[in-house]
Amino acid sequence: MKFVNNNETAVFALGGLDEIGKNMYCVQFQDEIIIIDAGVKFPEDELLGIDYVIPDYTYLVQNKDKIKALIVTHGHEDHIGGIPFLLKALNIPVYAGKLAMGLIRNKLEEHGLLRSAKLHTYVEDDIIKFRKTSISFFHVTHSIPDSFGVVVKTPSGNIVHTGDFKFDFTPVGEPANIAKMAQIGDEGVLCLLSDSTNSEIPGFSLSEQVIKESIADIFSKSNDRLIFATFASNIYRLQQIVATAVSYDRKIAVFGRSMENSIKVGRELGYIIAPPETFIEPYEINRLPSHEVTILCTGSQGEPMAALSRIANGTHRQIQTAPGDTVIFSSSPIPGNEVGVNRIINSLTRAGANVIHGSASNVHTSGHGNQEEQKLMLRLMKPRFFMPMHGEYRMLKQHSMLAQQCDVDEEDIFIIDNGDVLALEKESARVAGKVTSNSIYVDGSGIGDIGNIVLRDRRILSEEGLIIVVVSINMKEFKIEAGPDLISRGFVYMRESEQLINEAQRLVAAHLDKLMLKKTSKWSEIKNEIIDTLAPFLYEKTKRRPMVMPIIMEI
Amino acid sequence: MKFVNNNETAVFALGGLDEIGKNMYCVQFQDEIIIIDAGVKFPEDELLGIDYVIPDYTYLVQNKDKIKALIVTHGHEDHIGGIPFLLKALNIPVYAGKLAMGLIRNKLEEHGLLRSAKLHTYVEDDIIKFRKTSISFFHVTHSIPDSFGVVVKTPSGNIVHTGDFKFDFTPVGEPANIAKMAQIGDEGVLCLLSDSTNSEIPGFSLSEQVIKESIADIFSKSNDRLIFATFASNIYRLQQIVATAVSYDRKIAVFGRSMENSIKVGRELGYIIAPPETFIEPYEINRLPSHEVTILCTGSQGEPMAALSRIANGTHRQIQTAPGDTVIFSSSPIPGNEVGVNRIINSLTRAGANVIHGSASNVHTSGHGNQEEQKLMLRLMKPRFFMPMHGEYRMLKQHSMLAQQCDVDEEDIFIIDNGDVLALEKESARVAGKVTSNSIYVDGSGIGDIGNIVLRDRRILSEEGLIIVVVSINMKEFKIEAGPDLISRGFVYMRESEQLINEAQRLVAAHLDKLMLKKTSKWSEIKNEIIDTLAPFLYEKTKRRPMVMPIIMEI
Repeated sequence: MKFVNNNETAVFALGGLDEIGKNMYCVQFQDEIIIIDAGVKFPEDELLGIDYVIPDYTYLVQNKDKIKALIVTHGHEDHIGGIPFLLKALNIPVYAGKLAMGLIRNKLEEHGLLRSAKLHTYVEDDIIKFRKTSISFFHVTHSIPDSFGVVVKTPSGNIVHTGDFKFDFTPVGEPANIAKMAQIGDEGVLCLLSDSTNSEIPGFSLSEQVIKESIADIFSKSNDRLIFATFASNIYRLQQIVATAVSYDRKIAVFGRSMENSIKVGRELGYIIAPPETFIEPYEINRLPSHEVTILCTGSQGEPMAALSRIANGTHRQIQTAPGDTVIFSSSPIPGNEVGVNRIINSLTRAGANVIHGSASNVHTSGHGNQEEQKLMLRLMKPRFFMPMHGEYRMLKQHSMLAQQCDVDEEDIFIIDNGDVLALEKESARVAGKVTSNSIYVDGSGIGDIGNIVLRDRRILSEEGLIIVVVSINMKEFKIEAGPDLISRGFVYMRESEQLINEAQRLVAAHLDKLMLKKTSKWSEIKNEIIDTLAPFLYEKTKRRPMVMPIIMEI
Repeated sequence: MKFVNNNETAVFALGGLDEIGKNMYCVQFQDEIIIIDAGVKFPEDELLGIDYVIPDYTYLVQNKDKIKALIVTHGHEDHIGGIPFLLKALNIPVYAGKLAMGLIRNKLEEHGLLRSAKLHTYVEDDIIKFRKTSISFFHVTHSIPDSFGVVVKTPSGNIVHTGDFKFDFTPVGEPANIAKMAQIGDEGVLCLLSDSTNSEIPGFSLSEQVIKESIADIFSKSNDRLIFATFASNIYRLQQIVATAVSYDRKIAVFGRSMENSIKVGRELGYIIAPPETFIEPYEINRLPSHEVTILCTGSQGEPMAALSRIANGTHRQIQTAPGDTVIFSSSPIPGNEVGVNRIINSLTRAGANVIHGSASNVHTSGHGNQEEQKLMLRLMKPRFFMPMHGEYRMLKQHSMLAQQCDVDEEDIFIIDNGDVLALEKESARVAGKVTSNSIYVDGSGIGDIGNIVLRDRRILSEEGLIIVVVSINMKEFKIEAGPDLISRGFVYMRESEQLINEAQRLVAAHLDKLMLKKTSKWSEIKNEIIDTLAPFLYEKTKRRPMVMPIIMEI
């Protein structure tokens, strides 16, 4: 890095700043690069057909010899989802906690990468030493077990990355290691990178203990089937539901592939504990009395193909909602998913189910801390410099306000963009330069082959459809041999729009005849004539602007 | 209506049940049909490219001689937006309050229907009499002036339709006429149709008075530009902002076509009152000191082409956000719009603006009443039968629970669907049958010409794109004369995928050659061969399923 001095440590993100997802933060001192997390981001609606978004790994590929490790904070998709794509480009050593490692192994196996991968499981007390830098960990509470914050010790000072966290003093699993955090703070933190997700929410987040009580309450009151929809990745929540079901002598059937995976990994690694006979096969639920049945399913975000959606609209092979069922959304809708969730709640209500959802019912709490928790982290770490991370701009900005309230000076706070390089030494920090940091789209098996042109075409096609004009021309005799024929998709239903299509066809034919008289043989001229004739005609007749595609066959 | 007896009054909806929008309720006694409202609905995301959804008017067209009147409760799009489409089919008399009529006239003028329309403006005390039925009104509070509930007097009894309402005891305009409502209730209500929009929200909605104070507070604290984004249709809110701006000696510039329209109509009809010099042209804002400027703009729902979005991302011709600006979202995001609103808040924050939004800031209140208000309406009207309206199923269901709490028996409550006909006489009510009640899609100037096939094509095109295979065949000699050529849109970027396309082209060519040897002349066989060859090949290579369109030119 030309723009960073030899005594400076560079901190930068390839993903995760001014966005939710594709988290990837890097710490570099001279020729040692530590990568923290390699996530994916789920695309927003306008990225039509895109499956995932990942960071551009160019800088890492160019500096691959310097990379010491990928350190994984915890096992959520926005932190581990990019690992297969990254390892295909760079087979670097991966360090992760026990559960994250279990999930990563599954993922790598699916991609055929497990044999070649260099995987190391760490525990909280481990210290990973490189020549100039070293890594240590502190346990944090989040919605999945084995969540850690990371300390990267560099000659410039200690860089602390919180991972995702909340403070839950009565968690389902282990409490956070506040003593160790305080000790890290006392030893001195050069720069703190802290989770900003819920920086706009005042107060302190609800403990899982409260959710536990609400869930127990639901079990105690129901004499009928209970259907829980939640994030498959929220292993603590799954464990709570499972434990409560067991205590109420209910069996559990699991629906949805990601939920099955989570339960499988969670049980194998000992995070989800239940007698083996607790879990039943989906086909068995109809044999049991309904008060002995609990269902755990995917689809809490209203995804149309997930289990809950199919259960709600009656297209699931093994189970339909029935009056008496209680359906619990132990989740909250991610922005953009409200309409889908809403639709399912309507279907379930219509089918006679009692639907429990929303914050008033205390059946969900976030895995991210609110303002008071973020302040507690700031007070524990007492950083010299502060860089809010994990969040959209407004959240980073709000987090910077909180840091100022906790006595970090405004000029010591850096709200930066993906790619911006923060260069730190003991008493100074500056934005020194920028590395490549694009968004790469994954569609099917293609990585990065869908760009703005394809997306623009998809957008036009999705709203207006297309009309194809095919014409065979004898370019020697300047004669139309066949066509023009008009074919449309997504524009009008052709069988019902014969008159419009015929009129358009005659118009194009007349213009092409004139062009042939002029003995034009330029394809571009013929194509433009077709577009310039047809587009305004169709707009006038329909007030729509379909994509017009002339196809000229030369005979 | 065959299935309704001669002494029964039929009540049914052509739109507005189990949905938000396209409200259209009908009351029919023998040969007299009263229509209440003719709204549009804004399409959900999966209706790609559709502009509006309107009810199917088939039943009305078939019974046009019986229609006495379209009665409009108030001037919002989900109540008046369908009028041009309805009047094109049926030139029936339209009755509306003063402001709604002003908005309707504008709308009809745009559609060239104003001259032929039969328009009647009503006031609260009017009674519109037909041979067997008559209509009277009661003033309700809502987010637009001149909002009314409607009483249809029939020989079976009185049918009451609340329109949209809340109870606001300290409104900006006239308070609701509670006395008249009580009187209507005392005279006896056979069936109450009541607004269910906010039936899931406990308590009593915030008064506009509270919003007024918050807005005044913002003005009193700011020495810089104030930018208000709100619904153009919320005339009361506009009036509050305008009045406060005047009292703080600020000028007002208006951005966005619908906002300009609202301000124009509101000023013409006396609902928005300000000295003429208050309103300035957009280009004048840069001449004034920033503490003298207030901006009113569209785009509070995050619409990408609306004024606020262009101001936020710096593409507006006349104004950009600057540090010091305060931007107020005097609105709440409609489900589905959260992501767009979020994006704008990020852009504004990044540009240095102070953004005020969300329920904690008290800058918005709904125009619809919460549970306690809905109960008050039920207590005032004391209906014999109850039909919750205006809302999705879950809201109708919740409203029916509230009615039961207010002593309406469960069996006297009818949660019905669009098209279901409720047949009422003095002491009985039953769902007697069904009339046509589809959704009709409006796209550009086409009404109802986009059906499921076109939408399915748009969906496939939007996610996977298409690949066109063009081939010219000499069907007499069974010879490929030109092609096959492959062209794609929205699938892969062709310049970067030459190898894939060439491979696919060779594969199709080989299969077609074999087919020609068999002397096939069936188009369908050739087309299927192309699809069956190409689709699996492309899926294997890309894990995508583009639409494959074979185009065969016969020479």
